[in-house]
Amino acid sequence: MNTFRPVCWYCGETYEAEPIYTCRRCKGTLDIRYEYKEIFGKAYFEPLSASAGSDIWRFRELLPIWPNRKAVTLGEGGTPLIRTHNILNIANNQSLWLKLESVNPTLAFKDRPLAVAMTAAAQFGLNEVVCASTGNTGVAAAAYAARAGLRCTIYVPEGTPEEKRAAMEQYGAVLHTVKGHYSDAYKVAEEMALERQAFNLTSTYMNPYAVEGNKTVAYELAFQLGKVPDWIIVPIGAGPLLSGIYKGFKEMQLAGFIDKLPRMAGVQAEGCAPIVKAFHNGEAGVQPWSDPVQTIASGIADPLLTYPADGTRTLSVIRESKGIALAIADAELHRYRKLLAEREGVLAELSSVTAVAAAAHMQQTGLLEQNATIVSIVTGHGLKDMSAAINHTKGSVL
Amino acid sequence: MNTFRPVCWYCGETYEAEPIYTCRRCKGTLDIRYEYKEIFGKAYFEPLSASAGSDIWRFRELLPIWPNRKAVTLGEGGTPLIRTHNILNIANNQSLWLKLESVNPTLAFKDRPLAVAMTAAAQFGLNEVVCASTGNTGVAAAAYAARAGLRCTIYVPEGTPEEKRAAMEQYGAVLHTVKGHYSDAYKVAEEMALERQAFNLTSTYMNPYAVEGNKTVAYELAFQLGKVPDWIIVPIGAGPLLSGIYKGFKEMQLAGFIDKLPRMAGVQAEGCAPIVKAFHNGEAGVQPWSDPVQTIASGIADPLLTYPADGTRTLSVIRESKGIALAIADAELHRYRKLLAEREGVLAELSSVTAVAAAAHMQQTGLLEQNATIVSIVTGHGLKDMSAAINHTKGSVL
Repeated sequence: MNTFRPVCWYCGETYEAEPIYTCRRCKGTLDIRYEYKEIFGKAYFEPLSASAGSDIWRFRELLPIWPNRKAVTLGEGGTPLIRTHNILNIANNQSLWLKLESVNPTLAFKDRPLAVAMTAAAQFGLNEVVCASTGNTGVAAAAYAARAGLRCTIYVPEGTPEEKRAAMEQYGAVLHTVKGHYSDAYKVAEEMALERQAFNLTSTYMNPYAVEGNKTVAYELAFQLGKVPDWIIVPIGAGPLLSGIYKGFKEMQLAGFIDKLPRMAGVQAEGCAPIVKAFHNGEAGVQPWSDPVQTIASGIADPLLTYPADGTRTLSVIRESKGIALAIADAELHRYRKLLAEREGVLAELSSVTAVAAAAHMQQTGLLEQNATIVSIVTGHGLKDMSAAINHTKGSVL
Repeated sequence: MNTFRPVCWYCGETYEAEPIYTCRRCKGTLDIRYEYKEIFGKAYFEPLSASAGSDIWRFRELLPIWPNRKAVTLGEGGTPLIRTHNILNIANNQSLWLKLESVNPTLAFKDRPLAVAMTAAAQFGLNEVVCASTGNTGVAAAAYAARAGLRCTIYVPEGTPEEKRAAMEQYGAVLHTVKGHYSDAYKVAEEMALERQAFNLTSTYMNPYAVEGNKTVAYELAFQLGKVPDWIIVPIGAGPLLSGIYKGFKEMQLAGFIDKLPRMAGVQAEGCAPIVKAFHNGEAGVQPWSDPVQTIASGIADPLLTYPADGTRTLSVIRESKGIALAIADAELHRYRKLLAEREGVLAELSSVTAVAAAAHMQQTGLLEQNATIVSIVTGHGLKDMSAAINHTKGSVL
């Protein structure tokens, strides 16, 4: 089996596997590093690739869980990958695929990191979890905490969709609304986790165990496509999903299972785009978003007020991959949500639609190579923010 | 490859593969029969069983689709099977599993039959589809019609949850509300389909191609469990899901892949239970439900007013399997919905919860054998009828 430990992403300081969130030396966020042992190599991935479609736990040797621990699972992962017919203009033999992370037990990609984090909470003997959430993390945290029998307290900012709030409560979580934006909820959750000795599941880079769950998207994509996509387009708040996916591909490359890496595109909403701003200005680091946060894409509306370094970490992954960061206007989101539903049969939440609109923009601006294979990650299901969409439909002529 | 044709369930008259709904001789509903050829046998199922979890199209030789036709798919099927820890009393080594059909592209089991039916519509060269629906069928029909590029008109009864209506419209379907119950919508859809030469996707036994999609639940269950469950508990309106699952197991038995069959339990809500009534009275046939329809389980509230023979067909399958039919009170549904969410992390729509409440009832009344393996089908996701549940939560002390 592979052994693992948290390592500082910035200064390289290593720690024992324990509940830890930041480097005690430099305050940086952490990453999990594995001593890839004999299990690893092409021989690890090849048999798995023949059985596309089951849950994330078939990759458990590459997840930060000790052997013989029982996984806290609702069957997350193994999500569909479907090819679009009507989104991109047919040009240069390019193909756009959708990875439907909406088809997960709580209808968002967050089930992957939360299943891993909740299993880690149990392995560390903790009986309480806490998180900040714009909605999807909270719903997943509440569900997996219920499954694990752990107490769960969630801090959400104002403006979190009613459906998501109701779902968290139905799973039995205790819900608190925090005045302000996601960054404000982040801060309260951080304080409360410390005070109560609870595991903090906030899904920025806060919890290094959670981030590992995102890697499984990469393994599945390589198996489902039978190759490495040229571009992977990911909606990003702080961006751990984007980084996690890239890390998964790097592991497969290290194992000799693949011989190239994808380029990563990170997408934000124009009304809250700190990472995009830094990318376009060629800045080394991301700054907090100081303008008012104005977007309907609530799931990625993160101004990174007190943890801009999380944005910098994502920015560095985008750059390493020779990728891009781009922002989409809210009006485009309604348009592409409708297009996606009516022409492909996929109902995506507004935050997710950014990744589809971005594919079209990238094609129009000539960013996509001939014969390019592009994957957009549909991070959450449209039934999770129907009220936002219904209100829009009622209030406007489509 | 296997050839197939529609055959009358009642009188055995056979037809060519075409859009046909009832026997021209006796008006009975149809079944699809296959000439199982050399592809069939243990050698068919064994390799598939090693790759649990992908979509329904790996079973395409057992679906009524001609070779080389492109499947209309959103990645349906390959749903999780998870074991419950806290629903049944721990007794006699019994285990209760949940098949999460809620984790499908439109969040209900209907994606399986609708994907098959929409592919059949395309193979027959039809460009328009119609259906009656209490919600889930309509949402799936709208999504798959969008995916296939076919026009879709849906007739729903009053009382269909707002989330489901909105989803149908977002997928671009034309929606009509019919005064009365599901049976009334059924009648209008039947007339309109004839008038417009549209494929009727109403998911009773109306469309024999659709029903076949339900068989794939059986194959997956056998693979996931590595054995045949003793009991399968299914929420039923008219009951094609229950019959379809049983048929799938019979095919596996015929192939020599399994050597026993499960017992089938059909569950209805007390406020609309025509099949349960006939079962308990030992009647040969099901009668239309003449009392007022009074239940919050909208997905299975079918009084079978003009097609009681559909209920009789399901009743005969239940009896053939040495199964049972039972009814659950609405108050139990709220209780078990809460229990399921808070203790297992599974949010199920109210109609689905009947199958979980039924498992507990069957245990309490001594119906479950020692060491019994029980599977309850969670037919739809709780996020599809949140408003019903939210209204309940707001209006009562839990």
